[in-house]
Amino acid sequence: MNPLRVVVWGENVHEHTSAKVNAVYPRGMHHAIAEGLRDLLPSAAITTATLQEPEHGLTEERLAATDVLTWWGHVAHDQVKDAIVDRVQKRVLEGMGLIVLHSAHFSKIFKRLMGTSCSLTWREADERERLWVCNPGHPIARGIDRSFELPAEEMYGEPFGVPAPEEQVFISWFEGGEVFRSGCCWRRGNGRIFYFQPGHETYPTYHDRNVRRVIANAVEWARPQGTWVDAVVNAKVPVEPIRARKH
Amino acid sequence: MNPLRVVVWGENVHEHTSAKVNAVYPRGMHHAIAEGLRDLLPSAAITTATLQEPEHGLTEERLAATDVLTWWGHVAHDQVKDAIVDRVQKRVLEGMGLIVLHSAHFSKIFKRLMGTSCSLTWREADERERLWVCNPGHPIARGIDRSFELPAEEMYGEPFGVPAPEEQVFISWFEGGEVFRSGCCWRRGNGRIFYFQPGHETYPTYHDRNVRRVIANAVEWARPQGTWVDAVVNAKVPVEPIRARKH
Amino acid sequence: MNPLRVVVWGENVHEHTSAKVNAVYPRGMHHAIAEGLRDLLPSAAITTATLQEPEHGLTEERLAATDVLTWWGHVAHDQVKDAIVDRVQKRVLEGMGLIVLHSAHFSKIFKRLMGTSCSLTWREADERERLWVCNPGHPIARGIDRSFELPAEEMYGEPFGVPAPEEQVFISWFEGGEVFRSGCCWRRGNGRIFYFQPGHETYPTYHDRNVRRVIANAVEWARPQGTWVDAVVNAKVPVEPIRARKH
Amino acid sequence: MNPLRVVVWGENVHEHTSAKVNAVYPRGMHHAIAEGLRDLLPSAAITTATLQEPEHGLTEERLAATDVLTWWGHVAHDQVKDAIVDRVQKRVLEGMGLIVLHSAHFSKIFKRLMGTSCSLTWREADERERLWVCNPGHPIARGIDRSFELPAEEMYGEPFGVPAPEEQVFISWFEGGEVFRSGCCWRRGNGRIFYFQPGHETYPTYHDRNVRRVIANAVEWARPQGTWVDAVVNAKVPVEPIRARKH
Repeated sequence: MNPLRVVVWGENVHEHTSAKVNAVYPRGMHHAIAEGLRDLLPSAAITTATLQEPEHGLTEERLAATDVLTWWGHVAHDQVKDAIVDRVQKRVLEGMGLIVLHSAHFSKIFKRLMGTSCSLTWREADERERLWVCNPGHPIARGIDRSFELPAEEMYGEPFGVPAPEEQVFISWFEGGEVFRSGCCWRRGNGRIFYFQPGHETYPTYHDRNVRRVIANAVEWARPQGTWVDAVVNAKVPVEPIRARKH
Repeated sequence: MNPLRVVVWGENVHEHTSAKVNAVYPRGMHHAIAEGLRDLLPSAAITTATLQEPEHGLTEERLAATDVLTWWGHVAHDQVKDAIVDRVQKRVLEGMGLIVLHSAHFSKIFKRLMGTSCSLTWREADERERLWVCNPGHPIARGIDRSFELPAEEMYGEPFGVPAPEEQVFISWFEGGEVFRSGCCWRRGNGRIFYFQPGHETYPTYHDRNVRRVIANAVEWARPQGTWVDAVVNAKVPVEPIRARKH
Repeated sequence: MNPLRVVVWGENVHEHTSAKVNAVYPRGMHHAIAEGLRDLLPSAAITTATLQEPEHGLTEERLAATDVLTWWGHVAHDQVKDAIVDRVQKRVLEGMGLIVLHSAHFSKIFKRLMGTSCSLTWREADERERLWVCNPGHPIARGIDRSFELPAEEMYGEPFGVPAPEEQVFISWFEGGEVFRSGCCWRRGNGRIFYFQPGHETYPTYHDRNVRRVIANAVEWARPQGTWVDAVVNAKVPVEPIRARKH
Repeated sequence: MNPLRVVVWGENVHEHTSAKVNAVYPRGMHHAIAEGLRDLLPSAAITTATLQEPEHGLTEERLAATDVLTWWGHVAHDQVKDAIVDRVQKRVLEGMGLIVLHSAHFSKIFKRLMGTSCSLTWREADERERLWVCNPGHPIARGIDRSFELPAEEMYGEPFGVPAPEEQVFISWFEGGEVFRSGCCWRRGNGRIFYFQPGHETYPTYHDRNVRRVIANAVEWARPQGTWVDAVVNAKVPVEPIRARKH
């Protein structure tokens, strides 16, 4: 297989407006995520893109050369141009993988692909989160123990307003009494989508060893699988097959 | 249970521009569909709405009082206003059922709820279609034999660009050599969605006894099931649960 | 619809060997479950059956006249005769609903229908359990709030060794740090199956208002839906359809 | 990744009792299947096993060293010993892939893993079969065109008495008017299962280029994915986590 081409997309706003976030992610959250991928997938080509770049860094040419895109956004979902959302959706339907991180549950691209509210409940209270593997045979759980903990995360709670996940890899327990389907897989068109819940901007989550392992596994799982590249097989088919029948 | 409130929505264009269609459906396709429902669901309240009415006949008030909406469209998908699509989507997520008929696979509302291309292949060649029940315990197949035939229909072929159906009720065989997942169920938010493939405007499909039975069954299946009416449970939850713990 | 015919099956052993269990369920756990159903489904015909009766109370005639069977077992799974398991499986495939309760995750009939280990982790520590609704539009969640609590239950933890549930209604949070998919739906043949986790014999769980509501909802959801009664459509089909074709 | 270790299991009866079958598969059907895999997966270790060998060629040691098992059987399902079925089921739950071919829909191991009747309709009439890809992004469809044909196969028709497939890769059209879900994926425990319909013993199906490609793709797809090797995580968990909490 060819080297995997991954683009790590970051909203890149909190890092410049919050000293707290900047202290945790001085080079930006996208750089921390990319660093984790470079470490665990040394043969892959990992680059980054941000909201502030022209076309948000996601030109037609670049997306055409991308196997998997990871997406983190929070306060600036509305600033993502609809034309770019159209473009990313088209590439997912063609087969590009998409890894949706934490508050990107409310990104335009995730809502577009899900067709639902993508809503949830939340609370910022420095709570312990424990992520349980409920599908130990899944490639995204490779190398992960029965569960792992994050000492402090933002709580996300059910009901999560998404279509029923096609595969459930993780379910999270929060200290305050909530649960959340924190690792979910879907297929849309030829593309694979993974949502992964941890990653609030004020916590060092993307420096965590297990979180990095899960994202790297997800990137590998989401790589294009088939030989088709048409996003849409929409064609008027000629009548000839009828006449070709022998009977 | 209260009487079921059903709105049959029709694009209502072909009937006025094609003598052939008008001959088959002189009062409009939506009236034929509504007639079938009135016959089979005598206790339900069945009304119609069309593209040409103000707000396409789908005001906030009317949708709030609708349990199940059926949708047929073909040449005028683009004329449906986005604000009405938003409104219908919101009601589906709240729990309203949606029955999507034939060429409405390309309607704005279906594409919105699926998140995919909704594309397929097609051919108009007066072909025999045979619909097979592949889920005989499903309520939508109630009263239907192992299969039923339509003497002439438009062929729709795979691949059908939709998320994997959550339940597959019918798969169709076409004389020319194609197959199609012709009866598919999904859940989105609190609402149930059924796509049913037959119904090209030039054929008397909506006068067919079995087709009418399937649509009536689907309407009953799609009625709201729960007690919740919020489309979106999106709320910041207070920190109190942590403090309430005994340990 | 005809009155719903429900059989509540109980292993009926702990009640006679443990003073603690007998104090909570003096007439047997099956009577407490049946009492809850009679209260909430007054038009249904609710009867009980136990391991100790001839044919475990599940004769061919009785099963043929049963719409939904609920099953609680724990220490005597092995005493259930294989011939009776065959018989119950056949009826589920024909369309009878099956509600599997708590430790019946290891019953012969559940393992037979799932095809997997049905294993899990557990702990008896009088822990608080909070059951979250993750599918608020589902009929089994009707009348249930966003979550409900049981002050003490046996912990059941992931991974739960079952096929991916077709619909996930509840996920549980346990005080000790575990999560569990505690309300799960599957379809097998024409029948519907619901697994519901609470119900350890030493706790008054089957006297709980919310637990009773969930079981009653599940019984209604699991009633036979279709018109078919063949468990198995296994037939050699004649060659005639080929010759009947016009082309 | 290590070389893939595949065992091709054959019932190996028809080849010795029918001159017609022997003419098509002089070395046995299992050898034709293995030959196709050796050709397309040159780095894999492909071996064969048959009903007639001690323990049907499936000792504990051999299964422990098998990544994917393919299974063809027809007239001698009942001769497969239950102890060997138990052993294969355990290995699938541990993570071994299983490819179930044609009439093996009625094998003990497939019925065990599905929990259903696995019934269908059939007809031997030398009919043309056309297999349509309905999931073009799936790795099992890699290298396959929009559809492919077999000039003559046994018809298998719906309803197919299996749990709803978790992924549907192929749906077949038969000349006589039937359809069939001919390429279906399930996950059970840590293992992946693929059922593939073509392969009646009197036709040269396992010499077909496309059929061989699908089976090779399926074998690669079904290889173990995770790091877990426990078939069953069934454990009493100590109470300690509660005491470890800080609050």
